[in-house]
Amino acid sequence: MNAVFRARWTRSFSTSRSRSNRAVVYTQNGNPAEVLSAMTFPKLDPPRPSTVNVKFLLSPINPADINVVEGVYPAKPQPVQGIWSEDVYIGGNEGLAIVTAIGEGVDSVKPRDWVILTKAQAGTWTAVKNISAEEIVKIPNPEGLSEVHGATMTVNPPTAYNMLNEFVGLKPGDWVIQNGANSAVGQAAIQIAAAQGLKTINFVRNRDDIVDLVQRLEALGANKVFTYDDLKDREFRKKISILTGNMEIRLGLNCVGGPETTQMTKLLGNDAHLVSYGAMSKQPLSFPTSLFIFKNLTAHGFWQHGWYQRRSHLDRENLMRKLVDLTLQGKLKEPEHEIVTVPAYESDEEATMRIRNIFKTAQSYGKKILLKLECSS
Amino acid sequence: MNAVFRARWTRSFSTSRSRSNRAVVYTQNGNPAEVLSAMTFPKLDPPRPSTVNVKFLLSPINPADINVVEGVYPAKPQPVQGIWSEDVYIGGNEGLAIVTAIGEGVDSVKPRDWVILTKAQAGTWTAVKNISAEEIVKIPNPEGLSEVHGATMTVNPPTAYNMLNEFVGLKPGDWVIQNGANSAVGQAAIQIAAAQGLKTINFVRNRDDIVDLVQRLEALGANKVFTYDDLKDREFRKKISILTGNMEIRLGLNCVGGPETTQMTKLLGNDAHLVSYGAMSKQPLSFPTSLFIFKNLTAHGFWQHGWYQRRSHLDRENLMRKLVDLTLQGKLKEPEHEIVTVPAYESDEEATMRIRNIFKTAQSYGKKILLKLECSS
Repeated sequence: MNAVFRARWTRSFSTSRSRSNRAVVYTQNGNPAEVLSAMTFPKLDPPRPSTVNVKFLLSPINPADINVVEGVYPAKPQPVQGIWSEDVYIGGNEGLAIVTAIGEGVDSVKPRDWVILTKAQAGTWTAVKNISAEEIVKIPNPEGLSEVHGATMTVNPPTAYNMLNEFVGLKPGDWVIQNGANSAVGQAAIQIAAAQGLKTINFVRNRDDIVDLVQRLEALGANKVFTYDDLKDREFRKKISILTGNMEIRLGLNCVGGPETTQMTKLLGNDAHLVSYGAMSKQPLSFPTSLFIFKNLTAHGFWQHGWYQRRSHLDRENLMRKLVDLTLQGKLKEPEHEIVTVPAYESDEEATMRIRNIFKTAQSYGKKILLKLECSS
Repeated sequence: MNAVFRARWTRSFSTSRSRSNRAVVYTQNGNPAEVLSAMTFPKLDPPRPSTVNVKFLLSPINPADINVVEGVYPAKPQPVQGIWSEDVYIGGNEGLAIVTAIGEGVDSVKPRDWVILTKAQAGTWTAVKNISAEEIVKIPNPEGLSEVHGATMTVNPPTAYNMLNEFVGLKPGDWVIQNGANSAVGQAAIQIAAAQGLKTINFVRNRDDIVDLVQRLEALGANKVFTYDDLKDREFRKKISILTGNMEIRLGLNCVGGPETTQMTKLLGNDAHLVSYGAMSKQPLSFPTSLFIFKNLTAHGFWQHGWYQRRSHLDRENLMRKLVDLTLQGKLKEPEHEIVTVPAYESDEEATMRIRNIFKTAQSYGKKILLKLECSS
C-alpha cells in the first residue's frame, strides 16, 4: 500500500476510540512479512436484508493463507468494495465469528450465535464483517467448545474427516496409513480415525525430540508412529504385515510427496486409495505404473475448498455438526496454538509491524497462530 | 524341458498321423526364445460333464504373454495336470476356438460355436483344450467376423472399451486424449471412441514414417495425431485449447509413463481421470501434487484381467456382444497381423525351432502375431 493511500485512511479512522473495524490487508502479492498491513476501515453499516454483521473472535493463519498472499494459490480473494485506486484484499480463510446484527429475512442465525464461514477466501483477518447469511454456518451447541476449537474447525478437521470417509468404505478395525502425521490435518486424522474405530500407521520426519512427538501422537490415538527413515529398511514391509495381521491397507493420506510417499504407497494393499492434500516436500508424486494396473491403486487429491463448493448448505452444516459432536465428546482436541492479539489502541503502523513480525517467524512456529484483532466496540 | 522328458513324449505321441494335440509349453520362466517348446500331448478324452472340448483356430502372442513366460507378470498360469516331474505350463492368454464336443449339462454352447476364453492364463497356445463351460463365452453372430477378429477380441478391444466407458461419463462431442496411440489398445480406442461420437487427441513417437502413421490412425477415426516432441512446445497447450474450443478434456489413456505422460496429463481439465494400462517407457508415472488437489485429477489403472475376475458371466457376454456389434458394423477393424502356422507334420523339434524363432524377432514386429497350431484331426 502506498504512503498517500495509507495516510488518507490513517487520518480518517485510525484512532483507538473509533477503531471498530480493522483488517489485515494487502494490495499486491508477495512475502506476507513485506506486503501485509493493518488498515482501519469505517464502522459497518447495519446489515442489509439476507446479510449479517459478525465480529471475529479468532482467525488462524494457515499455511495456505501465506500462499494466497504470495499469489501462488489457485483460490484468490475478491477485493474489498471501495473507492481506492488499487485493489485491496483482506487475508485469511478461516475464523470463528459471533453474530452482532442480522438483516431482514435472516432466520438461520440470531445475534450472539457462533458462526464460521464456508465461502473460501472471504477475508477472516478482520475485526468485523458484513456477510451473506448463505455463506455462514452456525456452530451448534457452542457450550463446551472453546473459541480455539471453533476457529480451527473449517479447514483441517473437515479435510481429515472427508478424506477418511469419502474415498473408501472402511469399517472399525481397518487400517489407514498417513505421512505428515504431525501436521494439523494429520493430528485431526489420527483423532477422527480413532473415534471411528480405525487404526492408524503414522509417518513423521525424524527429529531430536522424536520420542516426545511419538508420545504426543500416541496420546491422540495413533496406533503406531514411524519415521521416513524406517521406510528404507528392507524388512519394513514385513513389519507392517505383522502389525496389521496381513490385513490389506486400503487408504493412504499424503501431504508430503517425493520418494517417501512412493515408498509409503507401496505398503497399500489391493484396490487402495491414496489421497493427497499437500506437498510439503515440494517434490512430485511418483509411482510405478504397476501399482495402478495390477494392484488397482487409485490416486486422488482432496481440497476442502472444492468440497465446500460442490456441496449444499445442509451438507456443510451436517459436517460441522459431526465435528462439533466429536469435540464435545473430547475426541477432537484443540490444536497446539498461540494467540496473537492486536490491541485496538495500537495505531495501524504499530499493528502492521506486529503483524509483519508474526510472518517473519511463521514458518518456524510449530504451533497454529491465531489472530485476534481487537476493536473498540 | 530336459532331454529325457522330451524324449519320452516324443516317442509316445510325436508322429504327424497321431498329432491331434500339441501345445507351446515351458517348464521354467525365462526368455521365450530359449524356454518355449512344442510338445505333443495325448488326444483329448470326451468332455466331462459341464466341460467342452475346443479346437483353437488362432491364438495371438500378446506382449503380456512374453512377460508371463519371463515370470515377471502378476498373473500366472496353472501347470498342466499330468505325471511329469516338472510343472509344465502352456503359454497364451487369448485365442479363438471352435467347440468340438460338449459334456453333459452344457447348454450355453453347441458344437461348431465360436468361443473365447474369459479365464486368464488358461493356455491358448494349444491346438485343442478341454475347458469348463463357465470359462468360455460364445461369440454371437460369427458370420461376418473373421477368425482374426475373433482371436483378438478378448484383451485389447475390451481394454479400450472399458477405459472409455467405466471411469467418466462422456457424451458425444467430448474429447479423449491418449498416448501410445499406435498400440493395439490405442487403435481400438480410436475406433471405439469414434463409434461413440467421442473425439480423440492421439500421441505417438516421432519416426521416419510418421506421415504414413498419422494417415493410418486418421483413417481409423483419430481426430488429431501429435508426437511426443510436440508436447515440448510451450505454445502446445494453447494449440489444444483452440482444437477443443476450450472444452475441458476429462479422460486420458496412458500406456507409456515417464515425462511425456506428465506433460500429457497437464493437458487434462478439471475433474479428469487418467487411466493407465501400460508402461512402455518403463519409467514411473510422476505428477505435480497440485494436479490432484487443485484440478481434482484422479489416476487409475486398468487391467482387463481384473475386470473379468470382478464381473459376472453375463457382463462378459454383454461386453463381447457390444464388440462383435461394432465389428459387424465395420467400426472395429482387424489389427495388422501376421499368422504363423505350425504344421501338424513338423516334429516337435522342428516346431520348437519355428516357435523360438518367432520370439527372437517378436519385439521388432510391428504387427500382432497369431499362432495357428495345426493338428491332424
